[in-house]
Amino acid sequence: MRIGIIGTGMVGRTLGSKLVSLGHRVTLGSRTKDNEKGPAWAAEAGPGAQCGTFADAAAFGEVVLNATGGTVALAALRAAGAEHLAGKLLIDVSNPLVFGPEGQVSLDPVNTDSVGERIQREFPEARVVKALNTVNCDLMVEPGRLSGEHDLFIAGDDAAAKAEAVALLGGFGWPAEWIIDLGDITAARATEMLMPFWLRMMGHFGSAEFNYSFRRPA
Amino acid sequence: MRIGIIGTGMVGRTLGSKLVSLGHRVTLGSRTKDNEKGPAWAAEAGPGAQCGTFADAAAFGEVVLNATGGTVALAALRAAGAEHLAGKLLIDVSNPLVFGPEGQVSLDPVNTDSVGERIQREFPEARVVKALNTVNCDLMVEPGRLSGEHDLFIAGDDAAAKAEAVALLGGFGWPAEWIIDLGDITAARATEMLMPFWLRMMGHFGSAEFNYSFRRPA
Repeated sequence: MRIGIIGTGMVGRTLGSKLVSLGHRVTLGSRTKDNEKGPAWAAEAGPGAQCGTFADAAAFGEVVLNATGGTVALAALRAAGAEHLAGKLLIDVSNPLVFGPEGQVSLDPVNTDSVGERIQREFPEARVVKALNTVNCDLMVEPGRLSGEHDLFIAGDDAAAKAEAVALLGGFGWPAEWIIDLGDITAARATEMLMPFWLRMMGHFGSAEFNYSFRRPA
Repeated sequence: MRIGIIGTGMVGRTLGSKLVSLGHRVTLGSRTKDNEKGPAWAAEAGPGAQCGTFADAAAFGEVVLNATGGTVALAALRAAGAEHLAGKLLIDVSNPLVFGPEGQVSLDPVNTDSVGERIQREFPEARVVKALNTVNCDLMVEPGRLSGEHDLFIAGDDAAAKAEAVALLGGFGWPAEWIIDLGDITAARATEMLMPFWLRMMGHFGSAEFNYSFRRPA
């Protein structure tokens, strides 16, 4: 499959490398043509990997992944071009983290809106699925790093798009029964708002190598 | 021990009954003197249970539990009286849920503030510990309803108060090693902001009988 990734940060590169290793063709898109992370990644990821602008990546992909930060996601996707997103599964991996001057973390948007919703509103022809934003990028592509069952969460308005996302995540190693559909795209609020808790838990464990699981009555 | 509970809702009554069953003396406080829930609860909970106003409950308790809704917690505690809270462990169980006209849920405060922080700021002599606000009230007092290890989270500025809270929670059946200290009272933001996710998960399970657990590398 042809996949476009918006964003050349750690998350975008990690997702891109995994997808190339699975036999997909990937274009990693950066904001500027001269970003040196793109060619460096493409050389390392090997055959099937190429780089370009946000628009190059979105035009290339049959599926598009937003791996930019949540506070810049809309600007990045505007640069990618609505015409290159229309009709496509667009997996939004972002969290809208805002870092204060003393390292305090907050979210923007939050509570009554979310990045996932904003993207779906601004690009109504894209088939947006919020996913993967609740785990570290190493876990995104290798859930087996943790022992036992643990869960991912998806949200979106398009049931077929969610099924396609579950299939793609299956390639990363996520069994379908570990992926919980929280509902329409407004459920992106719920998973984005996990971030302050996730950061506290990272502090508790001293590591990002953890994930949520649920206990039920026996 | 003498315990004052602020709030006669399901959470307050459930906590009160459990505390009475453990041999504590409990005054359940309501906003108005003529709230019939108080006497009804006291009759049912048996010896050691009594009821009164918010101020009666707070004056009575060596420890005070805030079991009101998060959006009315400050008003309730003002009525309880700062002089009755000073120096005491004050466990805040609340979540600031706001229900919109179509059933949408949001939080107020959120993101850069929390009910736990507001209480600590307004009552600086109280020793506030945020706890229990991440589980249904039946689980609060009977964690063994679920199989396997699952976790509670505490936050507060006073280490001794947190240790007292852990001891009290131990009486409810929570082993100390299941209780994760997330840090100072600003960590109340993190657990209050779990609520939108918790509500989605309740929808997924069709039940409030679940709790968080964590997976780590083997």
